[in-house]
Amino acid sequence: MINIDITGIPSIPSQLLDEARHAWARVKGGNGTFKDWNGWVTLPETTSDAEIAKIKLTAEKIRTESQMVVVLGIGGSYLGARAAIDFLKSDKYNIVTRNSPRIFFAGNNLSAPYTQQIMSFAASQSLSLIVVSKSGKTLETSVAFRIFYNLMKAKYGEKARERIYVITDPEKGALREFADKNGCISFPLPSNIGGRYSVLTAVGLLPMAVAGIDIAEVINGAKSETSPEDALTYAAARQHLYRSGKKLELLASFEPNFRYMGEWWRQLFAESEGKEFKGIFPVFEELTADLHSVGQYVQEGERTVFETFINFDTSAAKLIIPAGDINDGYDRLVGMDYNLIAKASKEGIKKAHTDGGTPVIELNAESISPFTFGAAVQFFLISCATSGVMLGVDPFNQPGVEAYKKNFFPALDKLV
Amino acid sequence: MINIDITGIPSIPSQLLDEARHAWARVKGGNGTFKDWNGWVTLPETTSDAEIAKIKLTAEKIRTESQMVVVLGIGGSYLGARAAIDFLKSDKYNIVTRNSPRIFFAGNNLSAPYTQQIMSFAASQSLSLIVVSKSGKTLETSVAFRIFYNLMKAKYGEKARERIYVITDPEKGALREFADKNGCISFPLPSNIGGRYSVLTAVGLLPMAVAGIDIAEVINGAKSETSPEDALTYAAARQHLYRSGKKLELLASFEPNFRYMGEWWRQLFAESEGKEFKGIFPVFEELTADLHSVGQYVQEGERTVFETFINFDTSAAKLIIPAGDINDGYDRLVGMDYNLIAKASKEGIKKAHTDGGTPVIELNAESISPFTFGAAVQFFLISCATSGVMLGVDPFNQPGVEAYKKNFFPALDKLV
Repeated sequence: MINIDITGIPSIPSQLLDEARHAWARVKGGNGTFKDWNGWVTLPETTSDAEIAKIKLTAEKIRTESQMVVVLGIGGSYLGARAAIDFLKSDKYNIVTRNSPRIFFAGNNLSAPYTQQIMSFAASQSLSLIVVSKSGKTLETSVAFRIFYNLMKAKYGEKARERIYVITDPEKGALREFADKNGCISFPLPSNIGGRYSVLTAVGLLPMAVAGIDIAEVINGAKSETSPEDALTYAAARQHLYRSGKKLELLASFEPNFRYMGEWWRQLFAESEGKEFKGIFPVFEELTADLHSVGQYVQEGERTVFETFINFDTSAAKLIIPAGDINDGYDRLVGMDYNLIAKASKEGIKKAHTDGGTPVIELNAESISPFTFGAAVQFFLISCATSGVMLGVDPFNQPGVEAYKKNFFPALDKLV
Repeated sequence: MINIDITGIPSIPSQLLDEARHAWARVKGGNGTFKDWNGWVTLPETTSDAEIAKIKLTAEKIRTESQMVVVLGIGGSYLGARAAIDFLKSDKYNIVTRNSPRIFFAGNNLSAPYTQQIMSFAASQSLSLIVVSKSGKTLETSVAFRIFYNLMKAKYGEKARERIYVITDPEKGALREFADKNGCISFPLPSNIGGRYSVLTAVGLLPMAVAGIDIAEVINGAKSETSPEDALTYAAARQHLYRSGKKLELLASFEPNFRYMGEWWRQLFAESEGKEFKGIFPVFEELTADLHSVGQYVQEGERTVFETFINFDTSAAKLIIPAGDINDGYDRLVGMDYNLIAKASKEGIKKAHTDGGTPVIELNAESISPFTFGAAVQFFLISCATSGVMLGVDPFNQPGVEAYKKNFFPALDKLV
């Protein structure tokens, strides 16, 4: 469960809370075109034990066969998995892992040097490939798929196809055809769940399971968000602040390992809301590092920013400050727990920012665990769809993303 | 050399360019209090061979003695070094390195789990510590210093001090005293260079040299920016766009390894300009990944965004697209170089964004190299100071960062 604390913002008019409840009812009920895109609403409760078991079995095969896995996908097809691994294991997972394969993400850019660095590392490793694209026609993923498929054919010959795992539309598309023709193990990306709402399908769950994350607990966490009053309050708070002139939301976490969860959140909200010349621009803020960066702007720049702190209970990671032979003014902290210092810092930041005209929403989560991750995901999905409907846009399309795709071949024609 | 292309923005009035030249003359000439903070202007040309040699020698000692280095510092005391290592080596440096020590950054947050993950990895490694703080009184760094110093004393006893390298004020402060008392090797952080302008001092150069980066070439690159017409044009372009209602700048790179260079840039500009209730809010954008994220907002959200692409010549990393047995519509790309596809994509994005009302500045850099890194750093330092003066703020102070520091002890008092 994620709990909201709105003491750091001006009080929300009750009609906005009603508006949020009404918007959520429309999303949940599948009003109009929403019915084609609200598959994620009931996904946690409808995910069967058999589906979980199939993902775990496949992950176990990959873990046994490979030292390294490359996940190909862009946007919603990779951010959720990366977020989960960084947050639940560590952003140093690939350095410290001993019993689970290293996991690299490619096909989310067009950088030759970057792709070559992964290829070069793959040369000496046993390798599996997970490829994720709903349409099977995503430029970045398609290009990278050719490169890595080619590399795997050179390594494994005809048996390469036994090491390729496909997550795509259950019925149609280029990747579906490829998987069926080659007998690859595949998982469906349900047609009524858009990319950025898909982290709790195999898109997110398969890489998580490969990393050794308990995916049943992730789903259990998501299930715990069934009475979403706090998620609706978050949606109402965002729209309240937006309507009063706040244009930028900084989602702030004290956990550096939360960075890619922040990227996931950023994609979710920017793609759902940034339409019709409106929307809150979402930014991730790493505390306390960013206080020595955008913190200056938050305190004294244009008064258009609000913050949302997401706080995890990290008290299990007890770390006592030892004495130091240094006269730096911090001897008072000796013997205290690091977590207490973080908490005092957080309170100090909240006071400084709210005093300075930056409202602060707080989201309080339990300890860092697969359960909490699942709860946070479902919380944000519910908030985002609700907030988008309140804003008056369709939170499930992304017409602006098509614009650059349309220009690609004409631009290529000019260059060749 | 970094070259600017301003064909994607409305033309800059000539008086704004004059304003930029005038502002730069004031910074360079040390008008008013600027003389106390403009040490970075002449730093590249005044850095002596002897200073470079001392840094390289120290780095060689560290490389010989340690499998792992922890760099403690926050804000400008770590972002530049991390940016250089990610960009010039790889963001996978710590995974792939064989002959150079792994380098971890701590003391830039208050997360107990994160700090414990590094401590736990350090248990089995030979270790050196680089600690960076101008005042020696930075909360995050001080707390982490106690923890890691304690860990090193447990590991090395009295000899721990021989593995601690200090970068701080040459004359005064808690860390200066500590280094002098314990005979630690130390490097000065000149008093006329602020933290965010310090990457070309030992603050950035020592960790870079430990990673095996040619720091003399970094300095040579910075020296190449001596006639800064393009940097001044960038400053003028930014202020031109800001005055016409653009509030957000997205610095966009096609290289995922540029991410922490983006974080460095973000700190530089946010802390220099976000004052007196004004300033452009800086955001880093990873292309093409973020087109499937904030790209939607850039195309169709509020019309308050402009972008700055920074393009590197990556043609040396040739990577030919192989055939694939997949009917995804991209067979035309077979046999083409990845770099050509990236270029076509970039042109398509630029057209889509400028057509949609998002102006695009382009900065064109040479190949990814220490020289180019140094040039880019000096280019941005010059642009930033100039842009800040044009905005009418002091680009060298950070009064807003002090606000949260002041609240720390009172908040702690309430908790204990």
